[in-house]
Amino acid sequence: MSEILNVAILGASGYTGVEAVRLIDRHPKLKLSALTGHSKAGQKFGDIYASYAHAGLPDVTKWEDVDWGKIDVAFACLPHGASQDTIAKIAPKVPVIIDLSADFRLRDPQIYAANYGRSHDAQSLLKGAVYGLTEFARDKLKGASLVACPGCYPTASLLSLIPAAQNGLIDLSTVIIDAKSGVTGAGRKSSQALSFTEVAEGAHAYGVGNHRHAPEIDQILERVSGVKTMVSFTPHLVPMNRGEITTCYARLADGKTVADVRAAYEQRYKDEPFVHVEAEGVVPQTRHVRGSNHARIGIFADRDPQKVIIIGVIDNLTKGSSGQAVQNLNVVKGWGETLGLDFQPLFP
Amino acid sequence: MSEILNVAILGASGYTGVEAVRLIDRHPKLKLSALTGHSKAGQKFGDIYASYAHAGLPDVTKWEDVDWGKIDVAFACLPHGASQDTIAKIAPKVPVIIDLSADFRLRDPQIYAANYGRSHDAQSLLKGAVYGLTEFARDKLKGASLVACPGCYPTASLLSLIPAAQNGLIDLSTVIIDAKSGVTGAGRKSSQALSFTEVAEGAHAYGVGNHRHAPEIDQILERVSGVKTMVSFTPHLVPMNRGEITTCYARLADGKTVADVRAAYEQRYKDEPFVHVEAEGVVPQTRHVRGSNHARIGIFADRDPQKVIIIGVIDNLTKGSSGQAVQNLNVVKGWGETLGLDFQPLFP
Amino acid sequence: MSEILNVAILGASGYTGVEAVRLIDRHPKLKLSALTGHSKAGQKFGDIYASYAHAGLPDVTKWEDVDWGKIDVAFACLPHGASQDTIAKIAPKVPVIIDLSADFRLRDPQIYAANYGRSHDAQSLLKGAVYGLTEFARDKLKGASLVACPGCYPTASLLSLIPAAQNGLIDLSTVIIDAKSGVTGAGRKSSQALSFTEVAEGAHAYGVGNHRHAPEIDQILERVSGVKTMVSFTPHLVPMNRGEITTCYARLADGKTVADVRAAYEQRYKDEPFVHVEAEGVVPQTRHVRGSNHARIGIFADRDPQKVIIIGVIDNLTKGSSGQAVQNLNVVKGWGETLGLDFQPLFP
Amino acid sequence: MSEILNVAILGASGYTGVEAVRLIDRHPKLKLSALTGHSKAGQKFGDIYASYAHAGLPDVTKWEDVDWGKIDVAFACLPHGASQDTIAKIAPKVPVIIDLSADFRLRDPQIYAANYGRSHDAQSLLKGAVYGLTEFARDKLKGASLVACPGCYPTASLLSLIPAAQNGLIDLSTVIIDAKSGVTGAGRKSSQALSFTEVAEGAHAYGVGNHRHAPEIDQILERVSGVKTMVSFTPHLVPMNRGEITTCYARLADGKTVADVRAAYEQRYKDEPFVHVEAEGVVPQTRHVRGSNHARIGIFADRDPQKVIIIGVIDNLTKGSSGQAVQNLNVVKGWGETLGLDFQPLFP
Repeated sequence: MSEILNVAILGASGYTGVEAVRLIDRHPKLKLSALTGHSKAGQKFGDIYASYAHAGLPDVTKWEDVDWGKIDVAFACLPHGASQDTIAKIAPKVPVIIDLSADFRLRDPQIYAANYGRSHDAQSLLKGAVYGLTEFARDKLKGASLVACPGCYPTASLLSLIPAAQNGLIDLSTVIIDAKSGVTGAGRKSSQALSFTEVAEGAHAYGVGNHRHAPEIDQILERVSGVKTMVSFTPHLVPMNRGEITTCYARLADGKTVADVRAAYEQRYKDEPFVHVEAEGVVPQTRHVRGSNHARIGIFADRDPQKVIIIGVIDNLTKGSSGQAVQNLNVVKGWGETLGLDFQPLFP
Repeated sequence: MSEILNVAILGASGYTGVEAVRLIDRHPKLKLSALTGHSKAGQKFGDIYASYAHAGLPDVTKWEDVDWGKIDVAFACLPHGASQDTIAKIAPKVPVIIDLSADFRLRDPQIYAANYGRSHDAQSLLKGAVYGLTEFARDKLKGASLVACPGCYPTASLLSLIPAAQNGLIDLSTVIIDAKSGVTGAGRKSSQALSFTEVAEGAHAYGVGNHRHAPEIDQILERVSGVKTMVSFTPHLVPMNRGEITTCYARLADGKTVADVRAAYEQRYKDEPFVHVEAEGVVPQTRHVRGSNHARIGIFADRDPQKVIIIGVIDNLTKGSSGQAVQNLNVVKGWGETLGLDFQPLFP
Repeated sequence: MSEILNVAILGASGYTGVEAVRLIDRHPKLKLSALTGHSKAGQKFGDIYASYAHAGLPDVTKWEDVDWGKIDVAFACLPHGASQDTIAKIAPKVPVIIDLSADFRLRDPQIYAANYGRSHDAQSLLKGAVYGLTEFARDKLKGASLVACPGCYPTASLLSLIPAAQNGLIDLSTVIIDAKSGVTGAGRKSSQALSFTEVAEGAHAYGVGNHRHAPEIDQILERVSGVKTMVSFTPHLVPMNRGEITTCYARLADGKTVADVRAAYEQRYKDEPFVHVEAEGVVPQTRHVRGSNHARIGIFADRDPQKVIIIGVIDNLTKGSSGQAVQNLNVVKGWGETLGLDFQPLFP
Repeated sequence: MSEILNVAILGASGYTGVEAVRLIDRHPKLKLSALTGHSKAGQKFGDIYASYAHAGLPDVTKWEDVDWGKIDVAFACLPHGASQDTIAKIAPKVPVIIDLSADFRLRDPQIYAANYGRSHDAQSLLKGAVYGLTEFARDKLKGASLVACPGCYPTASLLSLIPAAQNGLIDLSTVIIDAKSGVTGAGRKSSQALSFTEVAEGAHAYGVGNHRHAPEIDQILERVSGVKTMVSFTPHLVPMNRGEITTCYARLADGKTVADVRAAYEQRYKDEPFVHVEAEGVVPQTRHVRGSNHARIGIFADRDPQKVIIIGVIDNLTKGSSGQAVQNLNVVKGWGETLGLDFQPLFP
């Protein structure tokens, strides 16, 4: 008989929280046993997300009121800082914690402090955390107790760049990542700058020259290539809810060609259930992965034959966040990796 | 051991077609065995919908090339006219046909001819067709061989109006339905009028005074009430992909109150898996049913206490089309009605 | 030599404020001499609206710091309540005040109090205020010192209904107005409910059965018809920035026809510079008046020949607010009515 | 007494055509005397663009039916190819022709042929054409008879790059331009790929590695810098109507700093009426130039201090097309450069 694990979602009222709810609700081996929220404690989940009014989910509680001894897995969908503080407290009781925040992504607490404006206060946990870009972390994920899910931009960027970096196909010092994201990436909040009227019918960059996801990308590219890296990374806000596209530019390494790049990616991803290399000439579109855990990658020759353009698209809330979190849990537990995620994108 | 039925989708390249593909792909008792398309025959389905490039679906063929003897269920996602012509030919071989077109919705071939500009040439089949507004057709659906799925507007309108009509709570001669729909309702086509630049940042009515869904709504309201009916029905195009809202206005029948209406709806829908009556004061929103088979209904007193406003929302492609089609098949076969449809809306 | 009037805009940091800035900036007889704002006092206008960073406008000040003796015209773009309080103080010094709030629209202070949750404290001013639906108020506007600009919904609704009401063409007790508006109608604010992610890709009604614009519509329909009126009015929020559509349903008066309605409207509006009756069969679209002071009206027979559907579209911020305010000032001053407003809609 | 020139718009039914109509309609020295269109000849302009139904414009005619002897200025809003063919025929009769197509932008007919798939058949005219990036072409524009308006992407890109290129501040071999555009850039057409349902709620690149605007950008950067150039240029389609953003990445020239770049841009653009350098830290947004002829430019240090990021935003139909065309005519005629263009952006 199949075992069903009890899941708690910390911070269920944010967008990564509700996306985790959506996915876990249909996962055959998981049961939503606790939903926590700070300001929303005591409310029905359907009062926070009307789309769930019929769903029979547990009410939202404070995390302190959860009976952690009965929870098998916690998904932490909290802001950074709050995440490490809470995880430090529940870690002794909860066998598996999947963290969606930035708190356990960066190995170096100094870099964390410099980018997130506070010291890292859970460094003993940090040492054991596995960086969960699933496709490149399966061995370490198996049986892990703490998984740090990558940021949405790092997910798309790294899926687009690792095979090239790993195989010495590009000059990492020339990498420029121009990213575009839907608005859900900013979370659920009251903000004039995120109001419909200020976001619709326009586009703009943000975090230019100093976005926190850049050092996270550096860290992994360095790890796979052995080369010290400082990528150029500029995100843009685009008037759509979901979707993220990373357009990556790089100079090819001496003697390498775009065909070499394509061959490496096709080889690397050919058996992946969620990462797909587009046929030559096909441009990936964010809408074609909407609501799903899929990623699509396009590889192009630039006008200058010594340059390559690699474009990755994901849904920022699914593969870029809660979907990858579930995928990671599947690997941690040794289940089929697509369990609960084997559905198609919502297009149109 | 569970039997898996072979499904063919006729007209898989349109939006109701691809939505049927999405739903059937994850239905535990169905297998996509054939996808047909006229102009797209010979193409991979992933070339038509890039979101399926990885999905391993059968290529698109002409319907004439399908081995119909091996097909257990056909979903017809064809334009009206083409639908009846094709169904007439495959009906002898296919045990269950779920038609999503308008061809078998209207009982009276004259009304069909007047509204659809051609004679009905499959009247023998028409007689046996079951109008599949699932919640009000379960008895007839069981074991049916031909199901006519309601139009998207009739689905939202009738779920909003039937309990009142059935219980004599409103004066049917005063019913006004003001509907708003996302653009997918117009289908997949090359049309200047449907281009992004002509549809975004604006709204407008269409089909004013003569939309084909009006007689379909009349027919059912007459059937449940016994009162001859001619509703006022005006649809509007709104710049969103999915979602449909029907705002229904009516004068209450003498001596009836809005509380009576609410009580009737709560009673009627309390055990329904897909139709939900909002709590008092809560306005249903299309985005809260996006991508799902759910419908939500709000009931409101107007300023004039003798008038009631009933608002229904659905996803036009799911409950308004392919989702209800699958729901109908579940009833036809005696399966659990939510099979393959038991997932949550995609919000945000 | 042409006289140039000094204009102050009270509450310039809201959307009706910035729209007034846009229009007055290019008006040949007006000069923007003061911009006021409460929380933004001391800021450059270009820091509040980056679109004006180059425009050389005065900085925002508190209204108390304006030298009112030098101001010829004030446009009050304040919330209701704040508007009457401020206007009461500046009225002795400022020859012409154009109020865009709700404070001087309703003649009856009781109705005001019932709808706006506070007593009316400027009733002496209220008596002299002219309700500025320009096309129906020219005689009273000439030389007026206080103009109450109609709400956006009343503007579209009344332009759509007055000629019928005035000529006894419809049964006013049957009037239903189903309205749809862009999001700018809600003003500039930090609100989770108005964030892009909660508004995009969906539609919903709001204020069902109790919107404050309903009694305003009643008041004018009663005035022109002599018939006590309580319209049914339901607004909806649609994912677009600008634009408003009022779909008005009514039963024709005995013996009247849709042709009578069309004739009355064509006659009434044939010389209007900003109100246009569409040719038969043409549906007005909000995008075709975007950013302009124009209104377009379509007249349709319903399925039931005793019912008429009249659809009006405006840009809620222009004809529905600041544009009509400027149009009113033009009439107050006896200038050409289109002065500063004689530009075309922004489409696409 | 002020002279009023007679204007013909060739290809008035496209989006650059209607934008030219919008701007010229309000220009104090221009009169719309002829509107031409091939397939629309004989139609009222208001039947093609309902937003102009009230505007009293001339009907659309074939270009052959225009009395060219009476036309002082022609704006050619035709597709490339058609433009040179028509201009060749009318040039002897029309004193000033402003071409918005690509036909006279590239000096080298070979490059034209390679990029536009046909030979250049009006090379004698090509020699005299002035490339009208107004801010950098005033001397040549004065009195010119044929002006080639830059493409929308080159306009934003070159305004963002020329001051750096001209002053040797960046290494041109490292320039990468990642551009994002609204959908109007694709023109008015019936196309499934441009339908609302295929464009909304998503983003994607197009023309990767081979967009026709790249050689146009090269040509001008080479001209101002004297350095052979081949920029990397990748445009993306974003779900909005208007607006274009070019995010330009470059390595600084040896010894140069971002402060040097900022100083050069502030110096160069300080007196420009339409080009504005944002204050440090301010990100330009397309919505803040919507519907206007303004451009805004932001300058940023990248993480690597040897790299600079320069971001330019324009409205693709105004400064990127018809607005710049009018600006060019103003210079050709020696009028005030902002004539007819001195209005503010439409935000929100």
